[in-house]
Amino acid sequence: MEYFDRFIPPKGFKFAGVESGIKSKGKDLGLIYSEMPAKSAAVYTTNKMAAAPIKVSIEHQMASMPQAIIVNSGNANSATGKKGLADAYKMASVTAKKLGIEEKSVMVASTGIIGEKLPIAKIEPAINEAVHSLGVNKGYEVAEAIMTTDTVPKEASVQFEIDNQLITVSGIAKGSGMIAPDMHVPQEMPTAVPAGRQATMLAFIVTDLRANRKLLRKVIERAANLTFNSITVDGDTSTNDMCVLLANGTAGNHKVSIDDKNEELVYKAVLKVCSALAKKIVKDAEGATKFITVKVKGAQTEEDAKAIAKSIANSLLIKTAFFGQDANWGRIVAAIGYSGVDIDPLKLGLSLGEIELVKNGLPVKFASKELKEYMKRDELKMTIDLKLKKAETTVWTADLSYDYVKINAEYHT
Amino acid sequence: MEYFDRFIPPKGFKFAGVESGIKSKGKDLGLIYSEMPAKSAAVYTTNKMAAAPIKVSIEHQMASMPQAIIVNSGNANSATGKKGLADAYKMASVTAKKLGIEEKSVMVASTGIIGEKLPIAKIEPAINEAVHSLGVNKGYEVAEAIMTTDTVPKEASVQFEIDNQLITVSGIAKGSGMIAPDMHVPQEMPTAVPAGRQATMLAFIVTDLRANRKLLRKVIERAANLTFNSITVDGDTSTNDMCVLLANGTAGNHKVSIDDKNEELVYKAVLKVCSALAKKIVKDAEGATKFITVKVKGAQTEEDAKAIAKSIANSLLIKTAFFGQDANWGRIVAAIGYSGVDIDPLKLGLSLGEIELVKNGLPVKFASKELKEYMKRDELKMTIDLKLKKAETTVWTADLSYDYVKINAEYHT
Repeated sequence: MEYFDRFIPPKGFKFAGVESGIKSKGKDLGLIYSEMPAKSAAVYTTNKMAAAPIKVSIEHQMASMPQAIIVNSGNANSATGKKGLADAYKMASVTAKKLGIEEKSVMVASTGIIGEKLPIAKIEPAINEAVHSLGVNKGYEVAEAIMTTDTVPKEASVQFEIDNQLITVSGIAKGSGMIAPDMHVPQEMPTAVPAGRQATMLAFIVTDLRANRKLLRKVIERAANLTFNSITVDGDTSTNDMCVLLANGTAGNHKVSIDDKNEELVYKAVLKVCSALAKKIVKDAEGATKFITVKVKGAQTEEDAKAIAKSIANSLLIKTAFFGQDANWGRIVAAIGYSGVDIDPLKLGLSLGEIELVKNGLPVKFASKELKEYMKRDELKMTIDLKLKKAETTVWTADLSYDYVKINAEYHT
Repeated sequence: MEYFDRFIPPKGFKFAGVESGIKSKGKDLGLIYSEMPAKSAAVYTTNKMAAAPIKVSIEHQMASMPQAIIVNSGNANSATGKKGLADAYKMASVTAKKLGIEEKSVMVASTGIIGEKLPIAKIEPAINEAVHSLGVNKGYEVAEAIMTTDTVPKEASVQFEIDNQLITVSGIAKGSGMIAPDMHVPQEMPTAVPAGRQATMLAFIVTDLRANRKLLRKVIERAANLTFNSITVDGDTSTNDMCVLLANGTAGNHKVSIDDKNEELVYKAVLKVCSALAKKIVKDAEGATKFITVKVKGAQTEEDAKAIAKSIANSLLIKTAFFGQDANWGRIVAAIGYSGVDIDPLKLGLSLGEIELVKNGLPVKFASKELKEYMKRDELKMTIDLKLKKAETTVWTADLSYDYVKINAEYHT
């Protein structure tokens, strides 16, 4: 399997990004189009205030084989009541009409400001423009069109072979603040309601793989849990988070189902793309100067490991200490203690990089000069060992800087 | 009942604060002494990494009638292993010896830096000095001696009468960062272990009331839940949080028990002192420019109301928006949505001060100029109405400023 740090178009997909004028400048409307209906699987925010486009996407994705995703930035189309919901449906129906496909085969996503009506009069002609400018090599345009506080577009691809056929899995994502995704396959339809000013995370993964829907669902749930659902910038879970996987089956391989010998290969490919995109989101976190890996091992359950890792990764005191390049391990120990997880304090181990700081719950002597040097790095890793059982997890987070405060205090609604 | 914004000594108590040299300057050792053994009740941090002095205090407070509290700032005496625990016992035994009382009648508290051994050689002579300088009117010395990142000492008192006898309930507290207390009466003894660098909250409430222990316990649990356990600065629950109530019975009233006609009066007095101290902590929050009241009403249960209020009060996006004087209600709606509480999005109401922003889940028209003016205030109040049932709660929090980041990033271990 080969990884590419850019977007390689899988067979049968076309893309476009245009300027509709929702944002004062730059691309703000993206279109992903598959020449044939695609098998799909998706996870959506569990935020109880899920926004209108989330409702429309869930409805369409579950009822049909999606063939297009229309996405805008600059306006979240939320807190706009019935009109907002009608506008989200309108985005789908206009796109469908211009493409000559069914309305239900169009998914919709939005990210941006809230409480303002979607300027649908600007969007309609822009959809027309997008449809007419669709191109195989324009994935980067979609990556640009979905940026909000993002400073760089985010793309990743992998390629591998099944049945001697080349398979491409490629992804586009956005996200910078309001990042603490907790996305799952919905059990019921959410009520459409107001959302927050979004920095939201969106991820669109497309592939020419031939696979059945059950496999795609299993793969995206597993992969999202270990990647997008394992990152946090500020602990604020958005109302518009969405991660979609479309597989249009044009690669010509035999259909991969659950328990097929290639299941693991497909999973690893999707995981690699999700992982690369999730890391890019954290590296582009609002104001961040450090990428921090929090590994918790020796836990009784994966849930325990994740609760502790998230408690650490969301701690203001730890995030500000790391911004100050200070290995304040006392704050880490405190965050473990208030995570709510039952631990044995006298078994606890803690390392930063290769430097062991705590063993059996007590501080060990370490080379403070070496630690000081380590803390200057852009990428840091801490390992917590609970020494109870074998469960483990990894969470990625960022530090908290003056610029995070600046970005979020100086933004005005 | 009369409230005083300062510390009025109840009968039979003496106080002292001295400079032991743990901190580079200023008072850092406080002593509270009752001329006779006192009935007591206390709540302690539920952080699983509870520090050594917490262990000693729980043991002594539960086994005996406390007669003294010895407290130091500048060193948390944590992450110091068996030596640290021995040092905490030593603080109690030295204090007991100098005062001529039982070791078990001395409670111990610490707040400050972690991972460094307690400089017990400096503390021993300072305890001697404190005992010799005990005075009735030196409560303010204790308030000063327990400060860490606090910028002002925190004191509050109330007076009222029972059986024509004047009763005084007076409190001293500290806290500024690492503030999200969750204190309860312990069900079992915690293991003594490392703690974090503490900004911790400590509160010592003393009264000359005559009351039985069960009443004191009921009163302090209720009062702490509505005050100290309802504040948050940064969501980081310290390992050393402690709130103690000592009642030495010298006021000469009949003994107040549970179901006594004066139970509610006593509760209100303790609640008033706790409430005043808790607000002082939030007003002195690290870097804070705003005091924010979050009221959630119409909830199905108090737990639901508190979960939503804490979700809002700990949201980085809301705290930074308020620092920027921006009423970003979308972020508030998002925080309600990810609190995990089941709500009806289409019933949700939200007001800032008297200005209604959201009704039935949809934004309402409001005077944006008026709202802009409101957001300039130092004290702000938001009211969330879930319109489900009658349960409600109030949480106090602060905004998040550049100075919070500065204070916590530039502090070096």
